Amino acid sequence: MVPFRLYRHLIPQLAAAARSPSAPKAAASCAPRRIPPLPALAMAAYGTGVCADSKLLFRQLFEKESSTYTYLLADVGDPEKPAVLIDPVDRTVDRDLNLIKELGLKLIYAMNTHVHADHVTGTGLIKTKLPGAKSVISKASGAKADQSVEHGDKIYFGKLFLEVRATPGHTAGCVTYVTGDSPDQPSPRMAFTGDALIIRACGRTDFQGGSSDQLYQSVHSQIFTLPKDTLLYPAHDYKGFTVSGLPSIFKFWLPSC
Amino acid sequence: MVPFRLYRHLIPQLAAAARSPSAPKAAASCAPRRIPPLPALAMAAYGTGVCADSKLLFRQLFEKESSTYTYLLADVGDPEKPAVLIDPVDRTVDRDLNLIKELGLKLIYAMNTHVHADHVTGTGLIKTKLPGAKSVISKASGAKADQSVEHGDKIYFGKLFLEVRATPGHTAGCVTYVTGDSPDQPSPRMAFTGDALIIRACGRTDFQGGSSDQLYQSVHSQIFTLPKDTLLYPAHDYKGFTVSGLPSIFKFWLPSC
Repeated sequence: MVPFRLYRHLIPQLAAAARSPSAPKAAASCAPRRIPPLPALAMAAYGTGVCADSKLLFRQLFEKESSTYTYLLADVGDPEKPAVLIDPVDRTVDRDLNLIKELGLKLIYAMNTHVHADHVTGTGLIKTKLPGAKSVISKASGAKADQSVEHGDKIYFGKLFLEVRATPGHTAGCVTYVTGDSPDQPSPRMAFTGDALIIRACGRTDFQGGSSDQLYQSVHSQIFTLPKDTLLYPAHDYKGFTVSGLPSIFKFWLPSC
Repeated sequence: MVPFRLYRHLIPQLAAAARSPSAPKAAASCAPRRIPPLPALAMAAYGTGVCADSKLLFRQLFEKESSTYTYLLADVGDPEKPAVLIDPVDRTVDRDLNLIKELGLKLIYAMNTHVHADHVTGTGLIKTKLPGAKSVISKASGAKADQSVEHGDKIYFGKLFLEVRATPGHTAGCVTYVTGDSPDQPSPRMAFTGDALIIRACGRTDFQGGSSDQLYQSVHSQIFTLPKDTLLYPAHDYKGFTVSGLPSIFKFWLPSC
């Protein structure tokens, strides 16, 4: 989702967060030296990423060039450790698949929150490298995938699931994936909002099926109504933020459009 | 901590993670437009970053140029919402202080895991902008700070605390800050390891008080002995990883040095 703009009439106070970062310098290099491969099961005992009593393993991954976040979730309580990747990026597919292998997980779904002109997904590449993995996207996106989902669908990986919430407005097919709300699901809930709502901003609405009215309704009805301790994970951030929360007074200072 | 190198004799299998990333492109710009200031209390209701039943608010923040992570922790169960910043970077001090203001927190400590030739801390700048905040660093570092800490010290912010663990080897004064282990503290535990242990790698040991023997002992005795669901948060990552876990079989495939 590059280029990217704020919409003042949607979330006006947040525009200061949208300054373009200066081009970072490359980090110091380090040539690898005859390193034996990492044992496949070496990382299988990794802890969960949310709560001690949860079976969720969670990792947030960052792709610097497009400032995109990819999310890895797995049910490590299940013997097969089924996993999903949300919004994988083509150039970091190898990193992600290596991590999945190291953690002893089985990737079953490579999911996208949306399809967009500048959003370069890694789903196709994943399917060539890992034919067992299935691609997932919303039916409303019009894109091809192994599994097309609609509002209200539940996507299971082991005993854990993600709920599909239609959040159109940035594109007509945008969805937000939200962790389940039953007692055996992770707490607090986590919402993977794609470009519908990022940190102190939202996705552009001026092309490719965009609608600011629709996005306003989506964000208010499908995201701002989540429990107030829900953690919001965006598809992008340009200032170094990784997650945000859901302030309960949002509705009072966010003007209608 | 740039430049940065892996030490094969310490953590050999991890060298593949140390490739230098290519220089990212700048994101699209967005000129802010007459935006009213964000109300100071607007974000006070942010959810916690770890567990629903915890009073910890947690945010991981990234500085792209040096690939440094800064961590914000606050006790939002305390009326004053006291907060600490671990390893702030000079060029992102304004971002961090704005976030603290938006969340309605009171910064009491700006802490460093270590002092290093290339590690540009934001602590001094924070103290000029927020005179009430106190700087914290280990006594063994030899650096000046408002509060010098030693192994075993507990740094309280509200009812929550961070335990100081001496983890020398990258520098003689490196410490790891670990969240508390009593029932009212966040679960799982979180360890802010600085440069002692990063994701699939560790800090260089060949200058400025470094010792690979000492680092090996530090990592094994102070980090690998933590509960196996502990989340490890490094000072840096160059490949887009944000956190790692503590594999219980590390000790079997990590050779002694």
